[in-house]
Amino acid sequence: MHFYQSQISLRARSRGFHLVTDEILHAIPEIKNINTGMLQVFIQHTSASLTINENADPTVRLDFETWMNKTVQEGDPDYEHDYEGDDDMPAHIKSSLMGASVLIPVTNGRLNLGTWQGIYLCEHRNYGGSRNVVISAWGI
Amino acid sequence: MHFYQSQISLRARSRGFHLVTDEILHAIPEIKNINTGMLQVFIQHTSASLTINENADPTVRLDFETWMNKTVQEGDPDYEHDYEGDDDMPAHIKSSLMGASVLIPVTNGRLNLGTWQGIYLCEHRNYGGSRNVVISAWGI
Amino acid sequence: MHFYQSQISLRARSRGFHLVTDEILHAIPEIKNINTGMLQVFIQHTSASLTINENADPTVRLDFETWMNKTVQEGDPDYEHDYEGDDDMPAHIKSSLMGASVLIPVTNGRLNLGTWQGIYLCEHRNYGGSRNVVISAWGI
Repeated sequence: MHFYQSQISLRARSRGFHLVTDEILHAIPEIKNINTGMLQVFIQHTSASLTINENADPTVRLDFETWMNKTVQEGDPDYEHDYEGDDDMPAHIKSSLMGASVLIPVTNGRLNLGTWQGIYLCEHRNYGGSRNVVISAWGI
Repeated sequence: MHFYQSQISLRARSRGFHLVTDEILHAIPEIKNINTGMLQVFIQHTSASLTINENADPTVRLDFETWMNKTVQEGDPDYEHDYEGDDDMPAHIKSSLMGASVLIPVTNGRLNLGTWQGIYLCEHRNYGGSRNVVISAWGI
Repeated sequence: MHFYQSQISLRARSRGFHLVTDEILHAIPEIKNINTGMLQVFIQHTSASLTINENADPTVRLDFETWMNKTVQEGDPDYEHDYEGDDDMPAHIKSSLMGASVLIPVTNGRLNLGTWQGIYLCEHRNYGGSRNVVISAWGI
């Protein structure tokens, strides 16, 4: 069995949803050696997250941010955790709604995604900075 | 180590939440060879999703659809991505809330689910059609 | 390749969000043998869940419960599944929003979490009782 792991830093993005599939693949060229396996991307933060969604139309990513901001509101006086600003506690909640990782099958040396699927970095802070991810791939 | 992978198409379902545990298991009989391992089901779409929830009472699945429709509303004038209809952008959001995959331990050749757990296909489009999933299982 | 699996019962907690990282690690000491691998924790219930979030300030966990209760309301007359009480159906929905499992890279015999990350047990019932989890770890 092969088992590969790579740690990289994704450059700082604006608050919102961003396609990062190519950056991830660039960081783990060894998946070409995997005939049948899996790839996981794990983000080491609690105010940014990862998900899989539509890779073509950028308005999908805009609408994700719109919906998220309506659903996880800032400035709720019932929040106790707010010392890093109004975007602090909502970022924690949003990150658990989307999740800290994505797990994708690898087939014939490539990610076995659907035609319209890509990996999103979900940046929930106004100034989140660069984000560390651990990329793991295993299989035969 | 064993590593198995199978790709199947789940037949078209009505919009809503549907139990598909048996269909998944039928597609990967090789898990009986795995003493200690994992099974992943991955859906190759961005407007349908997978989750694990209650396998007995069908009203749970109905109430999931009720809550989802209230929480991720259709026809929000703030959405920019709407050219496939009012169920288009909400389906993308719902799919990331539930997630594109489930990952379940395998023990003694069987899924090690709790008594009340099953795998749901979550169909978020009005006419989503059949849905492709990649099923992977590995272990010793 | 190594493949370890352990099943434990997490003691009953009050409704809300609870850090359980240390309990999980205590149950699977074998991860020290894994140089490069993965650890999964899977909860065998549909009214409690697992997620990864902030491990330091307990008000984050309180605010999670606050937000969840506002977003997945109890007593909605449109729910059909309510025979176990007002916290019944909301618990099912909350558990799918957070998810039944977490998957974390293992590096040099340790969980490769970010500095501020911990594993949360999310107890969505008023009296959920103890909760069974299956812990799996694999790698080289």
